Amino acid sequence: MDNYREMWEKLNIDLERHDQLCKAIPQMYESIFVSQKDRPKGMNYFSFVVLEIHGLRIKELEEARKNGRKVIGTFCVFVPDEIIVALDAISIGLCAGSQFWIESGERALPKNLCPLIKAFTGALIDRTCPYFMSCDLLIGETTCDGKKKAWEVINKYKPVYVMDLPQMKRKKDFNMWREEINQLIEKLEELTGNKLTVDKLKKAIDLCNRKRRALKRLYDLRKMKPSPISGLDSLLISQIAFYDDPERFIENVNKLCDELDERVKTGKKSDKKRIMITGTPMALPNWKMHDIIEKLNAEVVVEETCTGTRYFENEVCEDGETIDDLVKNLADRYLKVNCACFTPNEGRIDDILRYAKEYNVDGVIDYGLSFCHTYAIEDSSIQKALKENNIPVMRVETDYSTEDSGQIKTRIEAFLEMI
Amino acid sequence: MDNYREMWEKLNIDLERHDQLCKAIPQMYESIFVSQKDRPKGMNYFSFVVLEIHGLRIKELEEARKNGRKVIGTFCVFVPDEIIVALDAISIGLCAGSQFWIESGERALPKNLCPLIKAFTGALIDRTCPYFMSCDLLIGETTCDGKKKAWEVINKYKPVYVMDLPQMKRKKDFNMWREEINQLIEKLEELTGNKLTVDKLKKAIDLCNRKRRALKRLYDLRKMKPSPISGLDSLLISQIAFYDDPERFIENVNKLCDELDERVKTGKKSDKKRIMITGTPMALPNWKMHDIIEKLNAEVVVEETCTGTRYFENEVCEDGETIDDLVKNLADRYLKVNCACFTPNEGRIDDILRYAKEYNVDGVIDYGLSFCHTYAIEDSSIQKALKENNIPVMRVETDYSTEDSGQIKTRIEAFLEMI
Repeated sequence: MDNYREMWEKLNIDLERHDQLCKAIPQMYESIFVSQKDRPKGMNYFSFVVLEIHGLRIKELEEARKNGRKVIGTFCVFVPDEIIVALDAISIGLCAGSQFWIESGERALPKNLCPLIKAFTGALIDRTCPYFMSCDLLIGETTCDGKKKAWEVINKYKPVYVMDLPQMKRKKDFNMWREEINQLIEKLEELTGNKLTVDKLKKAIDLCNRKRRALKRLYDLRKMKPSPISGLDSLLISQIAFYDDPERFIENVNKLCDELDERVKTGKKSDKKRIMITGTPMALPNWKMHDIIEKLNAEVVVEETCTGTRYFENEVCEDGETIDDLVKNLADRYLKVNCACFTPNEGRIDDILRYAKEYNVDGVIDYGLSFCHTYAIEDSSIQKALKENNIPVMRVETDYSTEDSGQIKTRIEAFLEMI
Repeated sequence: MDNYREMWEKLNIDLERHDQLCKAIPQMYESIFVSQKDRPKGMNYFSFVVLEIHGLRIKELEEARKNGRKVIGTFCVFVPDEIIVALDAISIGLCAGSQFWIESGERALPKNLCPLIKAFTGALIDRTCPYFMSCDLLIGETTCDGKKKAWEVINKYKPVYVMDLPQMKRKKDFNMWREEINQLIEKLEELTGNKLTVDKLKKAIDLCNRKRRALKRLYDLRKMKPSPISGLDSLLISQIAFYDDPERFIENVNKLCDELDERVKTGKKSDKKRIMITGTPMALPNWKMHDIIEKLNAEVVVEETCTGTRYFENEVCEDGETIDDLVKNLADRYLKVNCACFTPNEGRIDDILRYAKEYNVDGVIDYGLSFCHTYAIEDSSIQKALKENNIPVMRVETDYSTEDSGQIKTRIEAFLEMI
């Protein structure tokens, strides 16, 4: 990656600290991913992307910026990519999944806060993530107390525009969310100097829907017994979805799916236990749970998380003759996401029960990032619903450190023996 | 309290557990409050109220219910009492401050959650708080993730109506809050069978404003050097404000203030350090911090908390000829409260700096209930602002247990020596 040093320097990266990070990721990737047996060839593209994470993609962003395009950092599946894309800007998901950034994050935020928030805050103030440095604007949202208040800290380093997500799903909340999307349009028109048109927005909706469809195709293949792809590889693809070029990403997911279609035809029987993960997101490079589970006699076949089904389920309706029509379609689609930030959020239980059937799940792990109140409180109703349906479930609450990995492994082993 | 057992039994109280609680409170009250030297005579009323907490007041509520009035439980200074009062219902603040309920709360909620939420949840499911049992409806709000999701748990035991508080203070958020108040009116009209009128609402606004004015009068007296009343006694009065009969409460606060006016004239010099507490609320019987501080050579002279200034600052404008006008006034007043649930929330810093001057404060303690994200994240900007103004500040994060009391005492001693 030596040819990128000049670019990083220009981006004001802390090169020394960044070198440490750049050294750690490939080692980690090697031991977790490359050691998998019989990986699909189509994963080569995604391997390349993750190993070039701070190189080639950043170069693309910087070149786009030279040509006048804007780069927008986001942190949540509720921020409508369609608006960003339609205004010819580039959307980059900035949620962070490495322990590397926690220490710096804890200098600006309380220790007993979700590691995802501490990590992205640490990455920004540490100047060790070129995506942050490349962003012209960050878009935050009010999905949880931690994020909502972290924007105030982050805003001291980079401009943050905050969208106020409703807390319920009544009729007026849909209207309120439409208003928020309209305000975002105004903000981004101003930033990009471009004007939103029906045609541009329709094209952007089509692009984002095609991306959702490609991921849905991948996930549908995981419903097969055995799944033609590991949970680890699927998770990696979901994580890459947040920052890769959308057209190229779609092409490569579909190419991989063609290969997986063939695998399904020749799939041998497997006695691996099929696991659903439900709960909080797993941002790159948080592979901890999948790594533990898939090193045992089990495979993760579906993630009911923001780096899983919540990201791609439900397409945006493409019918409509005005921007208002399309914004309504966007609001309708985005508020279908069953995040624990809503009260009530019974749709999530329906989703989990449906996936348990569709994906032939043997057991569910309710995964929570430490100190995430909303998902932690939902745990009891999730467990109750699953038990009533005779689906085994266990709760794992953890952060990015590896200190508890042994203990988690032991607990999951016991769980797998029981199911 | 033996003459109340029949009433408690009818309310389905767990009598055995409740006996333990009824035994503990007077002992605690005795050792913390009664041991204070030279207490104002006017405190006798409040002593009586707190010692009759599960007796006489509950009897009043039950008698009111027999006469067809409704009792409404609330948990937050954002729920507009004026609407409840105007519809001839009785508003009771249900936030709970005792370690007694934590264990039960932790059976229904995650352990790493704010003790206030765990305590009121525990009190409800334990059936050891007659206020919960006496309530016809609970009104929750979306001020924090913990509460927002706890309503879902609590709703299984008692009907909860949730008001969606905006997360920001833009123009449209004021409109949104007006809508929420209008929806509350509809809900409570239905529950009470009463119809809101301009006249009734004006009278209720007047009553609540007079209550605010009485508390403001008390707090203004605390600005004197030395304060004619202890922080402990003032806190107790603020806590009682949430559940006592408003007219009687106003009368007794004013009577006490008359006495304090006299005391001010004869006040001797004092070398006690004057402390402001800022942060999270202290629900009854959470007297931990004040007890620790005032057993040292210091006095708490102001609380920038929900059981302090946030409860009574800013009156509701009484001008207006329609319900709409008055609801607008309500929304305007309530959204003036500078709670950490808003982003941004810079008004809180202004408040704290202003109080530091007005109350002649020597130092500030930023008090946080454990796991309260919003206040914990604001701590860094509060500390920065205070330090820039040369006002000493320390952070204390704690729960309801007494385990850390010794350690907190040592830290505060060191802080007092330094300032």
